[in-house]
Amino acid sequence: MRRSENENALVARIARALRPAKSRFLPLGLADDAALWRPTPGHQTILTCDWFLEGSHFLRHKHPADAVGWKCLARAVSDIAAMGGEPKCFLLSLALPAALTGKWLEEFLCGLRRASKTLGCEPAGGDTTRQNNVLISIAVIGEIRRGRAGLRCGAKPGDFIYVSGTLGEADEGLRELRGRRGIVRPSNPALRKHLYPEPRLALGRWLAGQHLVTAMMDISDGLSTDLPRLCEASGVGAIIEIDSLPRTSLLSATEATKFALHGGDDYELLFTLSARKAGRLPQKFRGLPLTCIGKITKEKKILLQNERGIEPLRSGGWDPFRAGQRQSRTGR
Amino acid sequence: MRRSENENALVARIARALRPAKSRFLPLGLADDAALWRPTPGHQTILTCDWFLEGSHFLRHKHPADAVGWKCLARAVSDIAAMGGEPKCFLLSLALPAALTGKWLEEFLCGLRRASKTLGCEPAGGDTTRQNNVLISIAVIGEIRRGRAGLRCGAKPGDFIYVSGTLGEADEGLRELRGRRGIVRPSNPALRKHLYPEPRLALGRWLAGQHLVTAMMDISDGLSTDLPRLCEASGVGAIIEIDSLPRTSLLSATEATKFALHGGDDYELLFTLSARKAGRLPQKFRGLPLTCIGKITKEKKILLQNERGIEPLRSGGWDPFRAGQRQSRTGR
Repeated sequence: MRRSENENALVARIARALRPAKSRFLPLGLADDAALWRPTPGHQTILTCDWFLEGSHFLRHKHPADAVGWKCLARAVSDIAAMGGEPKCFLLSLALPAALTGKWLEEFLCGLRRASKTLGCEPAGGDTTRQNNVLISIAVIGEIRRGRAGLRCGAKPGDFIYVSGTLGEADEGLRELRGRRGIVRPSNPALRKHLYPEPRLALGRWLAGQHLVTAMMDISDGLSTDLPRLCEASGVGAIIEIDSLPRTSLLSATEATKFALHGGDDYELLFTLSARKAGRLPQKFRGLPLTCIGKITKEKKILLQNERGIEPLRSGGWDPFRAGQRQSRTGR
Repeated sequence: MRRSENENALVARIARALRPAKSRFLPLGLADDAALWRPTPGHQTILTCDWFLEGSHFLRHKHPADAVGWKCLARAVSDIAAMGGEPKCFLLSLALPAALTGKWLEEFLCGLRRASKTLGCEPAGGDTTRQNNVLISIAVIGEIRRGRAGLRCGAKPGDFIYVSGTLGEADEGLRELRGRRGIVRPSNPALRKHLYPEPRLALGRWLAGQHLVTAMMDISDGLSTDLPRLCEASGVGAIIEIDSLPRTSLLSATEATKFALHGGDDYELLFTLSARKAGRLPQKFRGLPLTCIGKITKEKKILLQNERGIEPLRSGGWDPFRAGQRQSRTGR
């Protein structure tokens, strides 16, 4: 902490570092306690928030501060992508030790500003305080044309289940990060996906805009944790074909399958299509593979078809409240 | 924590405990990752967020859990009141130890639900995780008719400065709480104001709706910290008459003055009126006293007029980043 810098000065520094050259939405910027925002007529507002906590979601001595800044916003924006919406602005709740208000904070803000610009999500305000650990909570406000939102609840028996991209890559990156010393740089695709995930905004918008999907969500806690959530919201079950999973190629086949089923932090989209509309889906969307991994079933079970036959899929993703689960997502 | 209860079950419990009988705004409730909300035509959206952290903002072994639930929402809603807006919904980011997911959580949700109903602010969603301490971040979404918001930035030299209610009462309650053992009940008005503050929603709406105020904010960190913020945003100074401060009557005069100047957590409104409009302001609004405490000046200083003459007013409110300040608001 710079000596004698108080909360006002710190908030002013954060506001200066984050403020875009010209704000389209917020007449006040970060000066008042609350921000004012003018919603677009004919649109619904999308609201979401996400924790990003030192020790649980990132490690101060391994994750670069600018990756912390990027990822805390990107993962919250992923919830907007999962509905097919457009992010508009965010509120940053930040608590940090006084010792980190220098270089660490500058790098953090640099990553956050880059995410804010890249994802089209402006800073609208926030709250700052002091704590021994870095605590971040981000609320994101987005928009979608009325009636267009992709929800978890519309999957029907017979629908095909799709995922975007590759599953398990971010978890592979996490494993690599854990094996290294000191601050880790994004030296390969898996590490890059773990450190700087890219919410699938364009794909989500396209899927929702074309009325293609019956249900949609993002995979943040792993397929085996998130698919049951989609199925429960829709009142259905699912069967996944293990050979169809889009896996990372750097691991052994067994490991790659485990990571694809249970790995968190991929922020890929999971969505369902009626068999009738499946023909309209391209194999790739702007270079991103779209893969059919199974089918929605009437029976409310989540099943896995592998070479040995059919067996139940057990949730193995990250759940902070599961009995016996280690407490930290980063410390697994 | 109930054995084997996982995050899904916990989120479902929280949703059940908070959900109103019939939601006016949110077609989805708490099932999806994000919530959908339909803004009112002709209105601007107000966005704000606030930390409420164990050790900094409350003490687990002194503050009743239901007061934690009430206050975490009430203080965020106070930022909406300070603009003259109406709260609509909130996002709850909650982290807590597994040991508190039983009775403590139930009482917390009970207080939060009561605040939600009383203040007209519905739960829209949130994020839950496990931590050793209770961490709360609340984002509140409100609305105000376009162009009506009371801001910090409009005070002009010659304007009168007003506050609602009594200043220093919540801090008196905090001192009493610190002197007691175990969980403290609201046995007098000062403790009640500290534990269950009431954002001045009706007054804020009335002041903004009547176009009476030139600037407005709430007093959360103490008059001596918040008034300079209003003055800086407006590019003006102020002079406060010490004898005019609405003080609590239970303390000695010197102490009551100190508490009125520097005490935090009152959530009263601080606002300025042109001399021309001051005559239109009643002495009380629905029983709540409105007191003129000084004047806005052209010279950018914050001054205090007392029996010895005029002296600078030093900020003595709570600021987590002020050099030398003890870390905790509750531990002062």
